[in-house]
Amino acid sequence: MERRPWQDIAHQVQSHRNRTLSQIQPPIPDVPSSLPGNVTGIPQALLSPREVEITTTFTEDLVFSLATGSLTSTEVTNAFLRRAGLAQKLTNCITEVLPERALARAKELDDFLSEHKRPRGPLHGLPISVKEHVGMKDLGLNAGFVAWAEEKADDDALILKILWQAGCVFYVRTAEPQSLMHLETSSNLYGVTVNPFDRLLTPGGSSGGEGSLIGLRGSCLGLGTDIGGSIRSPAANNGIFGFRPTTGRIPLLGLSAPQVGSGYIESVLGPLSTSLDGIKLFMRTVLAAKPWVTDPSLVPLPWRDEESHLGKNDYKRLRIAVLWSDAVVKPHPPVLRALKEVVTKLSKVRDVEIVDWKPYKHDFAWELIASLYYMDGGDQTTELIGSSGEPWRPLSRFIVSENPHVKHRTIAEIEDLKLQRDKYRYEYAQQWNSTATTMAQNGDLEDLVDVILCPASPGVAPPLDSSRYWGYTSQWNLLDYPALVFPVTTVDPALDVRDDEYSPTNDQDQFNHDLCKSSISSRAFVQPLISEDNGPEKYLGLPVSLQLVGRRYEDEKVVEALAYMKEKIGLPFS
Amino acid sequence: MERRPWQDIAHQVQSHRNRTLSQIQPPIPDVPSSLPGNVTGIPQALLSPREVEITTTFTEDLVFSLATGSLTSTEVTNAFLRRAGLAQKLTNCITEVLPERALARAKELDDFLSEHKRPRGPLHGLPISVKEHVGMKDLGLNAGFVAWAEEKADDDALILKILWQAGCVFYVRTAEPQSLMHLETSSNLYGVTVNPFDRLLTPGGSSGGEGSLIGLRGSCLGLGTDIGGSIRSPAANNGIFGFRPTTGRIPLLGLSAPQVGSGYIESVLGPLSTSLDGIKLFMRTVLAAKPWVTDPSLVPLPWRDEESHLGKNDYKRLRIAVLWSDAVVKPHPPVLRALKEVVTKLSKVRDVEIVDWKPYKHDFAWELIASLYYMDGGDQTTELIGSSGEPWRPLSRFIVSENPHVKHRTIAEIEDLKLQRDKYRYEYAQQWNSTATTMAQNGDLEDLVDVILCPASPGVAPPLDSSRYWGYTSQWNLLDYPALVFPVTTVDPALDVRDDEYSPTNDQDQFNHDLCKSSISSRAFVQPLISEDNGPEKYLGLPVSLQLVGRRYEDEKVVEALAYMKEKIGLPFS
Repeated sequence: MERRPWQDIAHQVQSHRNRTLSQIQPPIPDVPSSLPGNVTGIPQALLSPREVEITTTFTEDLVFSLATGSLTSTEVTNAFLRRAGLAQKLTNCITEVLPERALARAKELDDFLSEHKRPRGPLHGLPISVKEHVGMKDLGLNAGFVAWAEEKADDDALILKILWQAGCVFYVRTAEPQSLMHLETSSNLYGVTVNPFDRLLTPGGSSGGEGSLIGLRGSCLGLGTDIGGSIRSPAANNGIFGFRPTTGRIPLLGLSAPQVGSGYIESVLGPLSTSLDGIKLFMRTVLAAKPWVTDPSLVPLPWRDEESHLGKNDYKRLRIAVLWSDAVVKPHPPVLRALKEVVTKLSKVRDVEIVDWKPYKHDFAWELIASLYYMDGGDQTTELIGSSGEPWRPLSRFIVSENPHVKHRTIAEIEDLKLQRDKYRYEYAQQWNSTATTMAQNGDLEDLVDVILCPASPGVAPPLDSSRYWGYTSQWNLLDYPALVFPVTTVDPALDVRDDEYSPTNDQDQFNHDLCKSSISSRAFVQPLISEDNGPEKYLGLPVSLQLVGRRYEDEKVVEALAYMKEKIGLPFS
Repeated sequence: MERRPWQDIAHQVQSHRNRTLSQIQPPIPDVPSSLPGNVTGIPQALLSPREVEITTTFTEDLVFSLATGSLTSTEVTNAFLRRAGLAQKLTNCITEVLPERALARAKELDDFLSEHKRPRGPLHGLPISVKEHVGMKDLGLNAGFVAWAEEKADDDALILKILWQAGCVFYVRTAEPQSLMHLETSSNLYGVTVNPFDRLLTPGGSSGGEGSLIGLRGSCLGLGTDIGGSIRSPAANNGIFGFRPTTGRIPLLGLSAPQVGSGYIESVLGPLSTSLDGIKLFMRTVLAAKPWVTDPSLVPLPWRDEESHLGKNDYKRLRIAVLWSDAVVKPHPPVLRALKEVVTKLSKVRDVEIVDWKPYKHDFAWELIASLYYMDGGDQTTELIGSSGEPWRPLSRFIVSENPHVKHRTIAEIEDLKLQRDKYRYEYAQQWNSTATTMAQNGDLEDLVDVILCPASPGVAPPLDSSRYWGYTSQWNLLDYPALVFPVTTVDPALDVRDDEYSPTNDQDQFNHDLCKSSISSRAFVQPLISEDNGPEKYLGLPVSLQLVGRRYEDEKVVEALAYMKEKIGLPFS
């Protein structure tokens, strides 16, 4: 039997996507045939003021309006469907929209509210976007592989059942890269997803469909997954919030993915949102459902936010250690400036103590996690790609076939890698315990560092196919630390000057430094705006984001610490 | 270079052991040259009444007397050293005693108390016994292998540091089998450990040194480890309490063991004790030290016993599901009688609901866990045994070289086994969620079954080298459920009649049934006592124990449920 050309299959899934987009009413407006680099101003020019208002409202305010009936789910769902459809035209971030089932669901919820005078749950009527490889009953489930284009989910993923019970609406599914293992979003099924702030740059990935969509306000809350940075990279590149929780808190049942990490490095599911309260609402809602009763791989920890996790001794409420560079790849100027601005402002807050964080063997950490990802030498991924005849995308090559740490391992080698992982995690914990704060001499656990503040990536969104340094995010996957990416500022060409004196210290550092030098990248530092007067959607250049990291299972503390920082110094800086 | 004969090495470690025993003062009394089968009455005949009184006091009462100064740690330590020395002569359960360091420590604690008028910590002055493979600084660390006889620990295991901080005294290290993977205790280094209730029977294992020692009251609280039943089998065979906590609660740092389970099935460390309060004290003390700050592999869950984990709706406080048989191997008559007696008494308690538990594929569960133990085909263990030239003990053969599920696995097969494990765990959880109780129709999680009551093993202590069915304990390792073994009754030949009508349904069932028929096993059912009037140490035959099992991380509920049962129906039955 002859193999069906992969191009036919790609054409088929794209036709399906386009068919679903054509069902949106009123039809999605046409966009200019020649698009500018920055397309973030286009939606508000083409949508109605009411649609713009709804879609630029934060999650926490939307659920309030929906629960009290001042907005109907039908109107909100329609607005997000339209804006998502536009986002697809602008950045190619979607695999399908679900207007029929979404509007039926919205109507059901609206009817419920008018009949019972109470919301169905804490997410009543809220549209939520979902990365494609989270299974939705009877819909495709390809995980970025042409070979899986015909796969369908038997059932909804457990996370979707929980969110559904909480009253949400599923209306759009988002793009991901071939193999799911890029920090970008490029597949042979759907093509390349681009960054709405500059279409020559990447939105990040692998949850890059979510990143672009939420960056364009085509969604206010979406689901991504992260095994090396796949939630945080698109959050950082699109100026939104993205949270990688500790493993064992959010259920993964019903996701489709190639075998990566063999259980020694585990993927997690987590939220991306336009607001920190959107992140919190997601975590609280999912954990209130006690998912561990159904999924015994989870730890039965509720979302513990009734009381503060920050210091209680009134002397220093929050102790922050700052990682300026991981001593492997030096971050680009805008990232360093963002760090410096945050630290300068925090250092004036009486209740905050700031110390330096010494990077402990982050180069070794990358070797280790890269080794642990593919202990089968990448065989399964290679077979999956080979079986359809689809070409390898450049970043699939980078992480599998060109990755020097990907080898066929023996059982003894696997055991050894696992022991190395455990030892490294142990040593990192000892560094945490021995990092001095003003109070640490007392030996009181309360006086240890609370969180690490660090870059989210070695630069702002880079050109397509050049996201080749995972260290600033994969570090925390290896350690299984919760990590939250948040927007801080935007690139300012007057301030973010290239350091031409700098001599890179290794190949990865050189690659990153060259990115900063290249002409295409220099555009990233001086982003032309298509529209200067867009009110809430005015952007002064590319987003610059940072990351806040906590100890294992201290997810609540990380979220609380960022809320505290926002309260004290205001974030993002306008 | 010629290899040193393994017999020389074994002689050397035994000489060391004997040398340490000879340092105990006053010297350990001689025991009769011809010992009876049941030696449990011997210690109180040979020790002073004061020594007998101290060593038969429960842990919780000892720590009270030690903390208030009504007993000195020196006196208590001396008494346990003497009784442990006797236990060695009676059952061969020890690898070394530590009189010098233990008495120095005891004196330090006594001095502290008289100087500061307060105890050092919650275990002030309490002697604790420790299984050999838990590293103690500068002492041997052989894990049952001749090849490792020269290994020494660089440092104390983390668990020992925590217990030390809490004020305890380490005075004795206990025997374990070759490879650590028997449910008995037989090695070429120290020989065979026997059961104090019948020296022709096994004390169980692999923490069988602890089992015999605590069974003989040579310790009131000891540390064991469990990856398939190694805490619970010796607890069951010696009529004491033994608790296998959920993984991720008690630190394993600083233990030595061969590579078993590859991280997919993890060993746990846990307590064996003469009392349930001893178990509780151990768990509370260790978790109060927040071991997760040092060991990042742990989950930061304190011991949550300030409030009840049992039902709060006043209708049924405790819901127990009873597993009468795992449908693979039918338990022997005394075990079934113990179950029946407990259930009969519980069914008269108004606040307790009892339902049946249907065994879900326990035969498959054994195949799976046996496959997961040795994914290297047993290579490492085979090499370790081969490198010294020591012979294979029969039960090492049973679990490694004769085990049909031990194979050299490919990475893809490992992934598949892991997925099967996760699927099985998921399915078992769904059975738990769907097991009907009178209230479950309401869909309230509070109304689900709280604990499973089941056999701890397919019979009472069997003859040496015949512990070949792990299913009643390894089942809960596969599922990672906390499991607590407790004494219920003793064998009564008038009640525990062999069922000669029974037709075994498979080879394992046949083997177990034949054990019951064999003449040596019949002795186990009619245990001659050497002394009928020993007061608190009077035993009417071999111990019969049962097991209480909870959901993952519901360790506190399991302990609370057993305390509740003890309060309501009295356990063990006298």
